[in-house]
Amino acid sequence: MTQVDLDLAGSLFGQLDQATRRGRGIVRDSYGDGEQAAHDIVRAAAERIGLEISVDAIGNLTMTLAGKDRQAPRILIGSHLDSVPQGGNFDGAAGVVAGICALSALRRRGFVPDYDISVMALRAEESSWFDVSYIGSEGAFGLLDPACLSVRRSDNGRTLEETLLARGFDPTAIAHRRQLLRPEQVRAYLELHIEQGPRLVAEGLPAAVVTGIRGCKRFRNARCVGEYGHSGALPRSSRHDAVAATVALLHYMEGVWDRVEARGADLLITNGELFTNPAEHAPSKVAGETRFVIDLRSLSMDVMSSVAAEARRAAEEIGAAYRVKFDLGVATDSPPAMMDARLRSCLLGLLDRPTQMPSGAGHDAAVFAELGIPSAMIFVRNDHGSHNPEETMTLEDFAAGTDALIRLLQQFPL
Amino acid sequence: MTQVDLDLAGSLFGQLDQATRRGRGIVRDSYGDGEQAAHDIVRAAAERIGLEISVDAIGNLTMTLAGKDRQAPRILIGSHLDSVPQGGNFDGAAGVVAGICALSALRRRGFVPDYDISVMALRAEESSWFDVSYIGSEGAFGLLDPACLSVRRSDNGRTLEETLLARGFDPTAIAHRRQLLRPEQVRAYLELHIEQGPRLVAEGLPAAVVTGIRGCKRFRNARCVGEYGHSGALPRSSRHDAVAATVALLHYMEGVWDRVEARGADLLITNGELFTNPAEHAPSKVAGETRFVIDLRSLSMDVMSSVAAEARRAAEEIGAAYRVKFDLGVATDSPPAMMDARLRSCLLGLLDRPTQMPSGAGHDAAVFAELGIPSAMIFVRNDHGSHNPEETMTLEDFAAGTDALIRLLQQFPL
Repeated sequence: MTQVDLDLAGSLFGQLDQATRRGRGIVRDSYGDGEQAAHDIVRAAAERIGLEISVDAIGNLTMTLAGKDRQAPRILIGSHLDSVPQGGNFDGAAGVVAGICALSALRRRGFVPDYDISVMALRAEESSWFDVSYIGSEGAFGLLDPACLSVRRSDNGRTLEETLLARGFDPTAIAHRRQLLRPEQVRAYLELHIEQGPRLVAEGLPAAVVTGIRGCKRFRNARCVGEYGHSGALPRSSRHDAVAATVALLHYMEGVWDRVEARGADLLITNGELFTNPAEHAPSKVAGETRFVIDLRSLSMDVMSSVAAEARRAAEEIGAAYRVKFDLGVATDSPPAMMDARLRSCLLGLLDRPTQMPSGAGHDAAVFAELGIPSAMIFVRNDHGSHNPEETMTLEDFAAGTDALIRLLQQFPL
Repeated sequence: MTQVDLDLAGSLFGQLDQATRRGRGIVRDSYGDGEQAAHDIVRAAAERIGLEISVDAIGNLTMTLAGKDRQAPRILIGSHLDSVPQGGNFDGAAGVVAGICALSALRRRGFVPDYDISVMALRAEESSWFDVSYIGSEGAFGLLDPACLSVRRSDNGRTLEETLLARGFDPTAIAHRRQLLRPEQVRAYLELHIEQGPRLVAEGLPAAVVTGIRGCKRFRNARCVGEYGHSGALPRSSRHDAVAATVALLHYMEGVWDRVEARGADLLITNGELFTNPAEHAPSKVAGETRFVIDLRSLSMDVMSSVAAEARRAAEEIGAAYRVKFDLGVATDSPPAMMDARLRSCLLGLLDRPTQMPSGAGHDAAVFAELGIPSAMIFVRNDHGSHNPEETMTLEDFAAGTDALIRLLQQFPL
C-alpha cells in the first residue's frame, strides 16, 4: 500500500498541466509566467499542508517540515519547475511534487524528523531559455558567473538581470556571488525525476536508483575544410573531400566506441549535427567543408578525456590521408557526478525490484554532488522520452518512486 | 611552329572577357545578354575570315568553310558560348575560338576541304540557368522534351519559351521537336575544351585526347530516417541514429569504390551534400534524419548500375542493423558517351606527348556521340578547375590543342 496521497499528486499534476499547457505542449519558461504559475501552485499546496515557506533572492522556493533540531544540517528534496518550450508535464515537476507528497505523508503520520526536511523548487534548470543551466541551484550556492546576468532569453531577448528584476528578485545576489545556501547546511540532497531514456519501459520496472550523472565532453563546432571540386572531373587522388574525410573520422570513432564498450566502460558518442555548407554544396561538387558535433557522455571523466584525445589524434591522421584539415575546436566539459554510495544502497534496498542506471541528462543533483553533498536520485519510468509533449508517467509509478523516498527519509540518520 | 594565329586567338579571348566580365567572374547567361555578346563577337570574327554564317531557329550559330562537295556530310567543330554565373573565360568559349582559329589557319594556307567544315557555337549548354543541359545541341536534333519550354530561368524567372521569343528565336522548333540538323549530315563532331580537373597540370602536359565522357547515376534525394533522442540518456542499443547509419553506409560505399578501382574499372563516388535537419538537430540530440547525395560517375553504365545496386542492398542491411530506414529515392541517369576510337587514335598521333583521359563533366560531344556520330574531344590544360573565375589556360596550351585539331582536319577522309 502506497504512503503517497494519490489525490494530492493527481491534483497537483492536473493543476500544473492546466495552468501551463500552451497548445500541444507545456511551457514553463524560466523566470517567466509559466514557471511562476507552477511555483504558485506548489506553494499553495505546501501552505495547505502546513509547511514553512521561504523564497530566496533569486526565487528558489523552499518548503520546510520542521525537525527536532532546527539548527542541524537539513535534508533537501529538490528539482525544478521550469520546462523546455513545448515540453512535457513531468520533467522537473515530478521531483517537486514527490517532495510535497513525501512531507505530506510524514506529517499525516505525525512523523517529526530529527532535523528539518525541505522541498526546494529550484529555478531555471533548463538551458533552453537563457543558454545557462542550473541557474537556481548554482545561484543558490553563489556559483554562477556574474556575466550570465547579461545573457538574453532566447524568445524575448530580455537579459537574465532584467528578467530577475521584473519578477521582483535580486540580481545582485548573482553579481556578488552571494551564497544563499551553504553546503554545510545540507545533510543530503534527494531528487526524483522521470527517466529520460527508454530503459525502465523496456525492462518493465517502475523506478530505479541513479548511479551517477554522466558528464559531457563536447566538440560543439568541429569542422573539416577541404576543397570544392567537380564530382565527375576530379580524380580520387586529387580530392580534398571533406565529406569522405568526415565519414572516415566518424566511422573510426564508432570503432573506438566499440572498444571502450567491450572493456565495460560507460560511454555514448553522438554526432547530432553534421552538415555540408548549404551556400556552397551541390550534387555535382566534391564537398569542401563539413561541420559537425562530437558529443561524448560518460560516468568517467577519464574515459571522455581519452576518447577525446583519440578523436584529435584520428582527426590529424585521417585529415592527412584525405588531404583536408580538421579543426575540432575547443571541447566544452561538464564533469560526471557520482551519486552517494550509501544513499544509493539504502534506496536500492527500498525498491521492490532493485535496479540502477546512469543518468544521461544533467540534473540539479549534479550541482549538489559536485559540492560534496551526499546526493541521490530516483528515476521513475516515463514513456516517449522527455522534453516533449508526449512525456508519460503513471501515478502508480510515481508513487513507487516516492514511496522509496519517504521510507529513506524515515531511516535518517543513516 | 604553331599554325594558330595567336593574335586572333588572344584578341577573341580578350574581347569575350571584356564584354562579359561582371565583377570578378564571367557571366554569359544562356540566351541572355552575356551569351549573345559572345555570339556577336565570334560571328564578327568569322565574317572577317570570310566564313559563311547561318543561325538556326533556336540560335545556334554555324560558321562554315565551304568544301569541294557542298552536299556531302560535313565536319562540325563545336562547343558552347554560355557560362555558369561567375564562371571563367574559357569553359566552352575555348572550343569555339579553336574552331575559328582552325578554319582561319586552313583558309590562310589556301586549304580547300573535300566537304564543308563548320564551327558551331551551340546555345545554352550549362544547366545553371534553365536546369536543362545541352539545349542547343539537343534542340538542334529535335531531342528536347517540349515541356522544357516552360522551365524558368533561375535568376529572372522567365520561361525558356519567353526567353527564346524575346531573343527573336522560334520556340515552336522545340515544341514540335523539329530536326534543325540531321545526324546523317554530320561526318564527325570535334570539340576542344579546357580540362575541368587537375590532371594535365599535375602531369605537366598541354593537352590530351578524351577517351569518353563519364555518365552519371545520381541518388539526388537520398534520405535516412531514424528517431530523435537524448544524446546522454538514450543507450546505444535503443538508438535509431540516422547519422551513425549514414556514416556506416557511406563508409561501406568507399570500400566498394576501393574494390571497383582495384579491378581497374572507372568510377568516382561523391557525396557532395550531406546534412542533418537544421530545424530539428541539436548537439544533445541523436539525429533522427539525414539527407544526402550519392553521385556515381563512370565510363561504364554497367559499373554504375552494379554500384547503385550495391548501394541499395547496403542501405537495406545497414538500415536494419541501425534500426533506421534508408530511402535512396529514384536515381537519375545520364549515360556515358565513348569517343570514336579511330578519331581518338588519329588525335593521339598528333600530340607531341600523347596522353588520354576520361572527361568527368558532360559536354555537347556526348549528344553527338549518343546519335552515333563519330566524335572526339581534346582537353587543354587549365589550372584551378572550371566554372569559376580562376580558370587559367595559356595561349601556348590552347595552340597545342588547336594544332592537333587543324592537323586532324587536314587528314580527312581518314
